[in-house]
Amino acid sequence: MTLNNSDVDIDGLAGEIEELLEKKDYARIKDILVEMNAADIGSLFEEIAENKIPLLFRLLPKVLAAEVFVEMEADAQAMLIQGFSDNELKEVLDELYLDDAVDIVEEMPANVVKRILLNTDTDTRNMINEILKYPDDSAGSIMTIEYVSLRLNMTVEEAIKRIRRTGVDKETIYTCYVTDDNRFLHGAVSIKTLLLAEEDDCIKDIMNTNYVSVHTHEDKEDVANKFNKYDLLAIPVVDDENRLVGIVTFDDAIDVMQDEATEDIKKMAAIIPSDKSYFRTTVFETWKARIPWLLLLMVSATFTGMIITSFETALAKFTVLTAYIPMLMDTGGNSGGQASVTVIRALSLDEVEFKDIFKVIWKESRVALLCGITLGICNFVKLLVFDRLTVHVSIVVCTTLILTVFIAKIIGCTLPILAKKVGFDPAVMASPFITTIVDAVSLLVYFRIASMVLGI
Amino acid sequence: MTLNNSDVDIDGLAGEIEELLEKKDYARIKDILVEMNAADIGSLFEEIAENKIPLLFRLLPKVLAAEVFVEMEADAQAMLIQGFSDNELKEVLDELYLDDAVDIVEEMPANVVKRILLNTDTDTRNMINEILKYPDDSAGSIMTIEYVSLRLNMTVEEAIKRIRRTGVDKETIYTCYVTDDNRFLHGAVSIKTLLLAEEDDCIKDIMNTNYVSVHTHEDKEDVANKFNKYDLLAIPVVDDENRLVGIVTFDDAIDVMQDEATEDIKKMAAIIPSDKSYFRTTVFETWKARIPWLLLLMVSATFTGMIITSFETALAKFTVLTAYIPMLMDTGGNSGGQASVTVIRALSLDEVEFKDIFKVIWKESRVALLCGITLGICNFVKLLVFDRLTVHVSIVVCTTLILTVFIAKIIGCTLPILAKKVGFDPAVMASPFITTIVDAVSLLVYFRIASMVLGI
Repeated sequence: MTLNNSDVDIDGLAGEIEELLEKKDYARIKDILVEMNAADIGSLFEEIAENKIPLLFRLLPKVLAAEVFVEMEADAQAMLIQGFSDNELKEVLDELYLDDAVDIVEEMPANVVKRILLNTDTDTRNMINEILKYPDDSAGSIMTIEYVSLRLNMTVEEAIKRIRRTGVDKETIYTCYVTDDNRFLHGAVSIKTLLLAEEDDCIKDIMNTNYVSVHTHEDKEDVANKFNKYDLLAIPVVDDENRLVGIVTFDDAIDVMQDEATEDIKKMAAIIPSDKSYFRTTVFETWKARIPWLLLLMVSATFTGMIITSFETALAKFTVLTAYIPMLMDTGGNSGGQASVTVIRALSLDEVEFKDIFKVIWKESRVALLCGITLGICNFVKLLVFDRLTVHVSIVVCTTLILTVFIAKIIGCTLPILAKKVGFDPAVMASPFITTIVDAVSLLVYFRIASMVLGI
Repeated sequence: MTLNNSDVDIDGLAGEIEELLEKKDYARIKDILVEMNAADIGSLFEEIAENKIPLLFRLLPKVLAAEVFVEMEADAQAMLIQGFSDNELKEVLDELYLDDAVDIVEEMPANVVKRILLNTDTDTRNMINEILKYPDDSAGSIMTIEYVSLRLNMTVEEAIKRIRRTGVDKETIYTCYVTDDNRFLHGAVSIKTLLLAEEDDCIKDIMNTNYVSVHTHEDKEDVANKFNKYDLLAIPVVDDENRLVGIVTFDDAIDVMQDEATEDIKKMAAIIPSDKSYFRTTVFETWKARIPWLLLLMVSATFTGMIITSFETALAKFTVLTAYIPMLMDTGGNSGGQASVTVIRALSLDEVEFKDIFKVIWKESRVALLCGITLGICNFVKLLVFDRLTVHVSIVVCTTLILTVFIAKIIGCTLPILAKKVGFDPAVMASPFITTIVDAVSLLVYFRIASMVLGI
């Protein structure tokens, strides 16, 4: 049993390490660190004073050091690299998987990138530059070009020998890809198939020609969805001629899934998404991410104010109507938000497409009627019994309520689908945006009904 | 190259299959289906008339049939099982992985479950019942008990032989677990390590004792977070005595991640989450998921109304103040929503914990001041220049705006953290809930400032 089986007490450990550092008991520190996972050491380093990290890092064995390096935050990585000798830098870089190296290059300041590229061999440098060319949100940008490729005419024995010889450098050996001299992709063989086959079986007879692949320029969100749909460990990335250029592994796909969910959630809350974690984002960056939508929505909300102003005389005659404006606006916003968020999530999980728009509207209309009528009846009783309003005023409020819920749900479910169709991001069509529209609509309905029923 | 490399035109294919069914060209249909992925056939079956599914299903080879069965929706599965002979049912069940069988049993009506359990052998039946005992959201409920176990004193050669002999039935052979006679877990060996080791190396010398494991009762969301943090293919599930009882594989962890994100998103939009997809949820179920929060929030919004009523005379004197109520309420709601949603997501990704509460409040205060002042200044200019209000009224509106944004952000970031601390779900503390509180607070601030500045 080891320290970090399951949950490690990182805070406690950080204290212990700091004490040992003071006593200069480096042997004991090393003993503790080598027993830990790279991910946990990464978390540990975040709790320890920055100036002690280079010393701790040098205590790690080479392979573990590279793994820990990948787990660290960009600023800590940059700090370490700046302190490295060229030789130390080379050692870490040699141990990195190519896609991790690319991630690091993408986040480093220019002077650090230059040092990194100077200290990698020409082959690696060319490969890094190749991957950097793909658009940020494409399959190409998250792929690795380290995979095991087999040939059609190999036997299982030869294939296993090849894996043994080259596999130690490859990020995943669990699925091997069968290509020809032109790198044209013919099929995939899992290591399970290889192990369960006879030694003299031919690869082309046991390979799966029925594999799922993605194009270099395919959206990485679609790539992640394919991992989920087909339960894949890795997916081959091909170019226009179906030549194999790389693979995306499941760990990168999981990162994409979590990032996309976070992005959607932020957009739904009227925040411009970033890929930094909460505490890594500075106050100024947080402000920049939040203020544009707040400003825009504040300006739009003034239309609602203008509607109220234009009915000022009516409101002065029936001041009681003013008291129900917040309730109508909130309920409308919440109803619309429910519909829009449900549809946005269904869109990003590929459960709903544009062709389903009328099915969605039909469903939401019925839900809206049920919700509206329930709310309307409950509210009607409350207005008559508790607020002691006249039947006329109660009818005005409750009819508005039902209509508002109905309109809010229809707007809420339609806008995201239309947004996606015309190429906008459906997630920004969530509650705050819908609320602003529904506010205005509900007030117009309110005053219109009031003028009909109460004759103002 | 095959049909379903990358994106299949399911709709087009469904039409083709229906035509072939009419012509009774079953051989051609079979040729098409065997070239497809199980997941795609599952999608295809959803587009085809229900009464034709049993016929199509019987055209599939045994292994593919079981894979397709797992991909189908619960109601289609139930329909198929009801049409199966006992023999056919046994054939499908024998091919299923145990955790898939458990998933199916959990979703079937009682009479179907009875038939399933009657047609599985005693061993499988006991194992299914064992897994069904674990709580719904625990690691135990999503684990499979089909894994490869090795012994400490085996050589690599013996281990590979064992995998070859038993591996075909195991859901993942990529990580093998080293146990003793008491099922006590000693370590883990990846197939990569085995392949790259010498044939006469001893398992106990090459195994990784520094593995990550989870407890049977650990929350499945935490299990999924560990997959993400440690980039795992599978994680061993142990009991109180560290005995190995099963493993969770990455595909189940991915499902949990996506489901949890969907659940959080729905809760944030004031919807009671369900695990059914959009179109699988009936109108009545959708209504049931949405109406409780709508009702609760509607009732709370009446407090806001009561505040307005109590300041009726003041409002009658300064009717212009009414016009800015929607803007103040919306901006407050949006500001609070931004803070709460950011913190909720950070909590569920383990980026923020309870001990960080003051760090969060300190950060949000500064963001809130920046946002508030920006909005206040923009609004002040607008009120003076476009709305031609007096300086006094403009000051009232803008001071309220700044204070509202500040209070909203502080409430928004604090409530989710406190909710989690006391065991509530932080996700329900999102925009709709915050909006309702912020509405009331902002009105109280508004009228208080108005009475001070305008002397009403």
